[in-house]
Amino acid sequence: MRAQIKLTAAVNTSALDTPAPVHRVVVVGGGFAGLNLVKGLARASVEITLIDRRNFHLFQPLLYQVATAGLSPADIAAPLRQILRRQKNVQVLLGDVVDIDVVGRRVLLADQPPRAYDTLVIATGASHSYFGNDQWASVAPGLKTVEDALAIRRRVLSAYEFAERATDPDQIAAWLTFVVVGGGPTGVELAGALGEMAQYTLRRDFRHIKPESTRVLLVEGLDRILPTFPEDLSQQAQTALTRLGVTVRTQTLVTQIDGESVTVQDREKQSERIPARTVIWAAGVQASPLGKCLEERASAKLDRSGRVMVQPDLSLAHHPEILVLGDLAHFAHNRERPLPGVAPVAMQQGTYAANLVRARLAGQGAAPFAYRDRGSMATIGRAAAVVDMGRLRFGGLPAWLAWLFIHLMYLVGFANRLLVLMQWAWNYVTYNRRVRLIVGASAPPESNAANSAELRSAAPK
Amino acid sequence: MRAQIKLTAAVNTSALDTPAPVHRVVVVGGGFAGLNLVKGLARASVEITLIDRRNFHLFQPLLYQVATAGLSPADIAAPLRQILRRQKNVQVLLGDVVDIDVVGRRVLLADQPPRAYDTLVIATGASHSYFGNDQWASVAPGLKTVEDALAIRRRVLSAYEFAERATDPDQIAAWLTFVVVGGGPTGVELAGALGEMAQYTLRRDFRHIKPESTRVLLVEGLDRILPTFPEDLSQQAQTALTRLGVTVRTQTLVTQIDGESVTVQDREKQSERIPARTVIWAAGVQASPLGKCLEERASAKLDRSGRVMVQPDLSLAHHPEILVLGDLAHFAHNRERPLPGVAPVAMQQGTYAANLVRARLAGQGAAPFAYRDRGSMATIGRAAAVVDMGRLRFGGLPAWLAWLFIHLMYLVGFANRLLVLMQWAWNYVTYNRRVRLIVGASAPPESNAANSAELRSAAPK
Repeated sequence: MRAQIKLTAAVNTSALDTPAPVHRVVVVGGGFAGLNLVKGLARASVEITLIDRRNFHLFQPLLYQVATAGLSPADIAAPLRQILRRQKNVQVLLGDVVDIDVVGRRVLLADQPPRAYDTLVIATGASHSYFGNDQWASVAPGLKTVEDALAIRRRVLSAYEFAERATDPDQIAAWLTFVVVGGGPTGVELAGALGEMAQYTLRRDFRHIKPESTRVLLVEGLDRILPTFPEDLSQQAQTALTRLGVTVRTQTLVTQIDGESVTVQDREKQSERIPARTVIWAAGVQASPLGKCLEERASAKLDRSGRVMVQPDLSLAHHPEILVLGDLAHFAHNRERPLPGVAPVAMQQGTYAANLVRARLAGQGAAPFAYRDRGSMATIGRAAAVVDMGRLRFGGLPAWLAWLFIHLMYLVGFANRLLVLMQWAWNYVTYNRRVRLIVGASAPPESNAANSAELRSAAPK
Repeated sequence: MRAQIKLTAAVNTSALDTPAPVHRVVVVGGGFAGLNLVKGLARASVEITLIDRRNFHLFQPLLYQVATAGLSPADIAAPLRQILRRQKNVQVLLGDVVDIDVVGRRVLLADQPPRAYDTLVIATGASHSYFGNDQWASVAPGLKTVEDALAIRRRVLSAYEFAERATDPDQIAAWLTFVVVGGGPTGVELAGALGEMAQYTLRRDFRHIKPESTRVLLVEGLDRILPTFPEDLSQQAQTALTRLGVTVRTQTLVTQIDGESVTVQDREKQSERIPARTVIWAAGVQASPLGKCLEERASAKLDRSGRVMVQPDLSLAHHPEILVLGDLAHFAHNRERPLPGVAPVAMQQGTYAANLVRARLAGQGAAPFAYRDRGSMATIGRAAAVVDMGRLRFGGLPAWLAWLFIHLMYLVGFANRLLVLMQWAWNYVTYNRRVRLIVGASAPPESNAANSAELRSAAPK
């Protein structure tokens, strides 16, 4: 195989009577946007290189289920090579893009030769932002990667173990207090799952503590949770959370996190220190550092979150050969606010960009990208969700079933769909969460390093 | 609940007219032996404390499937609290036993108060031994814990990624050479799964390398693999392995492992250096350090592997109140060789010990432990296995089905059984291995630290 490729390259550069070289598309990031773009180019005569730091595509909307022991990482991930193994015009490259040579049209990789492109697609997404308090990262992990999810799972399960063996009631209360910062969909879903775990799953597991006495706090700075949803759905979500024992505190800002407590401030600037050993960060958006790179190398404009302002066709101003998609893109064409960083936007942009590349190769133009908003949804624990489809808005069990259906539909891989559905059915009937394993030691809770030596120990006895 | 326990303790020590205090059984280790013992005491009027460093029971016979991306850890593990949640006479304690006060009858724990016992059961198993070459641990991981399995999975999958991007044919060959040291059941199962992965699973995944050209070497010091099985089954296993592209080298010793190569020596003392970046250690047995502790504190006799020589009733000489079970025990009563460190022995010893404790509480004696050998089995990749049931010996598909049935039967948890069966069926039909995720950075391959920075990176882009 390699011999053939070498031969082709030799012919292309040396002989004069060969056909035009194949258009090279380099795609950075195998998320929803990048993967949809690659698939959309399946039958195009292009040479695609898909570069990702990870060897798998991750279905991020269900990552909160991994963090709360409902699913295994493999249930919501699929190897990129596996997904694309039959698409012969793409090669997957595991690699770390460190710079872009815009003039020479090459991406520079760590420890690997550069890759030349004719069209470059950057779809490297976003991470969470601590709003300048990066020191909170060690005590309040966010939820973006599989490792994040496993670290949160480890912390949550370990907290119950520490509570079980503690004797001081204040210590027990601090271990049994979970604070989720940020009332968007991720925060709501995490808080709901934590409430469900405390009320149902762990009920009979302990002998000294009562898991039902767990406090789950959901802290939101604005005046309601799910602020991008209509008000009545926010209200429904809050009611459903309350039923799961979650306390919602709106118009509340976090001013300090130290591993043993969280300090919050309400609208009247009243501060309160809440003893809590487990804090999860579900607020703020920080675009991928490749945005900054495009600013320096291609004079791209960035917004406050570091997202790249794109043209109506998702390209960079003055660089039509560079497209930016998904959470990294700030698309505000004919709109008051930029499109939200959600999966449907990324998927549609990926498909649009594939069509754009094909149109350009055919010498044609393309209409600007237009987002078809089919609505948004969030789930709140057991058999409760909210769905906003514009005129159609609903909650409760019907919304949960809709949520389930949509998520299964977009999950990659038939086996994954089947296994996730089975495990959900199982969890639903038995109230169980199977994946309650305290595994790995890569990110021990820093706040209790002294206490947790034996929890972290991975060596066999 | 805690208040109640405190009250009971107070009454026991202060009042004179109370009933006899409840017999306290402390069990260290929640493997097959410990768990079977605890379950066997479900209806006994004892107070059991089950101490484990991990919060889950692990079905070790299938750990090789986690290492080779066929199953997720949660498929072969179940939380101890979940398993025992309805058994009210047991409490599970996550903890690390550091010493035993044999005179005062207490186990000492790291960072926790000591636990008093009337009967102490030590069932903390064994790990692998590098025969004095502990420096090989970093370049040739063994397979005992979930973390081990995930580290092996990461190394194996990363090796293919490095091969795909390498250009030097020698480098590619070194990345595509996997050496498994030790021809016992674990080594055979690992080598078979690696062969299957190379020949079938990864076939279409790469563009530059041919996974079918992978070399899998199984190195065994004795004159045949599966030396504890009858000779004809060893031969059958070797044939099945060869069909999967595995090269078996018997009467071969490993004399050096350096992360880039393995040096082996054959019967004629001829040395050969084999370039190989991935080595897996499946040889040697090293008993849990608590054996050493029993030697010091209770004058227990240990064998060469550090296993504790036990009496016919599995107790320590001069310490009938201390029982040692499973892989940590050397039981040689009326036999030439000690019982092997396999799951059936551990399970039967757990059940025996539960009966022994109950008999003693009733003031009765007990017959010595007798192992009922129902046979042994090992699987070799796809639809091949060997089964030795004494007079009945068979291989091939019937053996594989028997192996499948037995393993599903003993797997803990109905959901686990169903999910494992489904995934096996799926893998069997599609040749796929779902869990091909390179995740976590806790144990990067030391031999290629410089190259693997981007593979190890866990941060989102």
